[in-house]
Amino acid sequence: MADNKNRMILFAARPQGEPKASDFRLIETPTPEPGPNEMRLRVVYLGLDPIIRLRMNANTYWPSLELDKPLNGRTVTVVDKSNLPDYAPGDVIVTQGPWGDYMISNGKGMDGKPLPKFDPARGSITAPLHVLGITGFTAYIGLLEIGQAKEGETVVISGASGAVGSMAGQIAKIKGCRVVGIAGGDAKCAFIKNELGFDVAVDYKRPDFADALKAACPKGVDVYFENVGGAVFDAVFPLLNLHARVPVCGTVSEYNVTDREAIADKMPALLLATLGKRLTIKGFVISDHFARMPDFQREAGGWLREGKIKYKEEFVEGLENAPKAFNAMLKAETFGKVIVKVSEAPKR
Amino acid sequence: MADNKNRMILFAARPQGEPKASDFRLIETPTPEPGPNEMRLRVVYLGLDPIIRLRMNANTYWPSLELDKPLNGRTVTVVDKSNLPDYAPGDVIVTQGPWGDYMISNGKGMDGKPLPKFDPARGSITAPLHVLGITGFTAYIGLLEIGQAKEGETVVISGASGAVGSMAGQIAKIKGCRVVGIAGGDAKCAFIKNELGFDVAVDYKRPDFADALKAACPKGVDVYFENVGGAVFDAVFPLLNLHARVPVCGTVSEYNVTDREAIADKMPALLLATLGKRLTIKGFVISDHFARMPDFQREAGGWLREGKIKYKEEFVEGLENAPKAFNAMLKAETFGKVIVKVSEAPKR
Repeated sequence: MADNKNRMILFAARPQGEPKASDFRLIETPTPEPGPNEMRLRVVYLGLDPIIRLRMNANTYWPSLELDKPLNGRTVTVVDKSNLPDYAPGDVIVTQGPWGDYMISNGKGMDGKPLPKFDPARGSITAPLHVLGITGFTAYIGLLEIGQAKEGETVVISGASGAVGSMAGQIAKIKGCRVVGIAGGDAKCAFIKNELGFDVAVDYKRPDFADALKAACPKGVDVYFENVGGAVFDAVFPLLNLHARVPVCGTVSEYNVTDREAIADKMPALLLATLGKRLTIKGFVISDHFARMPDFQREAGGWLREGKIKYKEEFVEGLENAPKAFNAMLKAETFGKVIVKVSEAPKR
Repeated sequence: MADNKNRMILFAARPQGEPKASDFRLIETPTPEPGPNEMRLRVVYLGLDPIIRLRMNANTYWPSLELDKPLNGRTVTVVDKSNLPDYAPGDVIVTQGPWGDYMISNGKGMDGKPLPKFDPARGSITAPLHVLGITGFTAYIGLLEIGQAKEGETVVISGASGAVGSMAGQIAKIKGCRVVGIAGGDAKCAFIKNELGFDVAVDYKRPDFADALKAACPKGVDVYFENVGGAVFDAVFPLLNLHARVPVCGTVSEYNVTDREAIADKMPALLLATLGKRLTIKGFVISDHFARMPDFQREAGGWLREGKIKYKEEFVEGLENAPKAFNAMLKAETFGKVIVKVSEAPKR
């Protein structure tokens, strides 16, 4: 954090493939002053989300990010200066915020309602960036509502050590499913099996990955929670059971890909299997489901207090390192929820 | 029909690509005699269904047809000789039957219940092969249950002049949808627009097919009833709206294809659009839905009596011509429901 200046990382250019340093631009402006009925929030933690990569493209199905504006994400902030009667310096607020040091807020969220203050008695102030926030909620909706996972079914989760995947797998365990996680490398596989309690972890970097996955799913796959796409999708697809559901949450392995190898068209086989196996392949975007957020928060809060939900965070020091961390996340080089520490956390 | 012999067309060899004459074998046996508590049914009409082509493959998601057994399909039969008290010669029965002249029946269907007699007062005895039978029921379930088509939505139907497609489009019109049908050639397009009342017909053989389809769907596509796959799927896909549904009923353009051209992999774009547009791509097989058959028959019977449902039949004379007609159907050279006339219909 800078004392009297406000750093921001702007979206400088639409990336071709992997974002380059020049696709971001760090600027400094004076620290903004809140007007009447406004407050200044200091960003403490910034959560990084893969979806931002899709929004960097010009033509996507999401609102495209505007060039020369700050990038944004879920942030944990502290009220720094307030001209609002209901907020005082030191209050913690989790909100959509900039890749930057400060933001000015009128105290209202995107829904027009007052921004809720985070009660530190609820636990870690970073939990709302993942297990208790939109990330965890995405796992919850994708698994239970879109995926309709039921007790006794086999659930396969890709990106299983990531923020969404690790939560989805743990919820599936709580709901009595057999859970097979797909992750890259020994450390991540050990984590999801030993720490999170998945039934099996399969390393997609193994040369015999497809065979290992098949062996891990002797009863086939009832729900495939899709986070990564690409070769992992191809390996899971033949294992899908009759009436299997594929909630499509993301395809992060594809976000940076620009050139596609010419291959024999897989689409006919996909449609044929969809027909014959009565598959449901269903995309979802979490903002369509916000009405169920209170249900989730009640349930997930309970699970967290009971010790049924664990999580892993990878902290990155300093706003200036956000772009590099973002790229590492897209390449699956990170481990757990990636959180940029922008400034000092309030004392508890 | 042969007087005292029973012709049957056996499944002789699994086809590679388009079925050849040698993949079928016509045999003659003596006309079978019904035993105690059996009856002999004479096949009058045999409906041809594209799904048979998939079941000719060794590894499909459907029960594979056994070699050296008769091919089968929905048939309109007449009781020819009966040792069952509840059935008398002349009774008309619609049932699963052989590509052959005669079959022996114990009077029970696959569900173990007595085979219902068809009441000729209900109308055409061929209607149960299409609009009032499994074909029409497939259209009904695919459109309304899998596709969740709603009033005011745009529904696109491929294979629109075929047995399933023409019924799906007419049901969609009855339900207040805007209906765009895709068919091949002027005659089929004129039929679906002028006779069946589709809002627009688009000829997939036009060089500017994709543009013409886009122009026909100014509000995009809410439901795509998929019967054909291939290039038609590719043209519809970009037009799908947020939350669109794709009931996958068949991909008949693909059934004979063995070699696939190498192309840039379309799967990543499919998954990404599925995610961003919150699409639901859902296969269905009609046998899963038989519990709703009575609902369908009540509704469809009413529509037919009220003149709201029209249909086209293409009759083929003679059992021996079934294989050729089957191939023509797979190549979309037929027009309407393909029905083989095996023997003389009972007098009305």
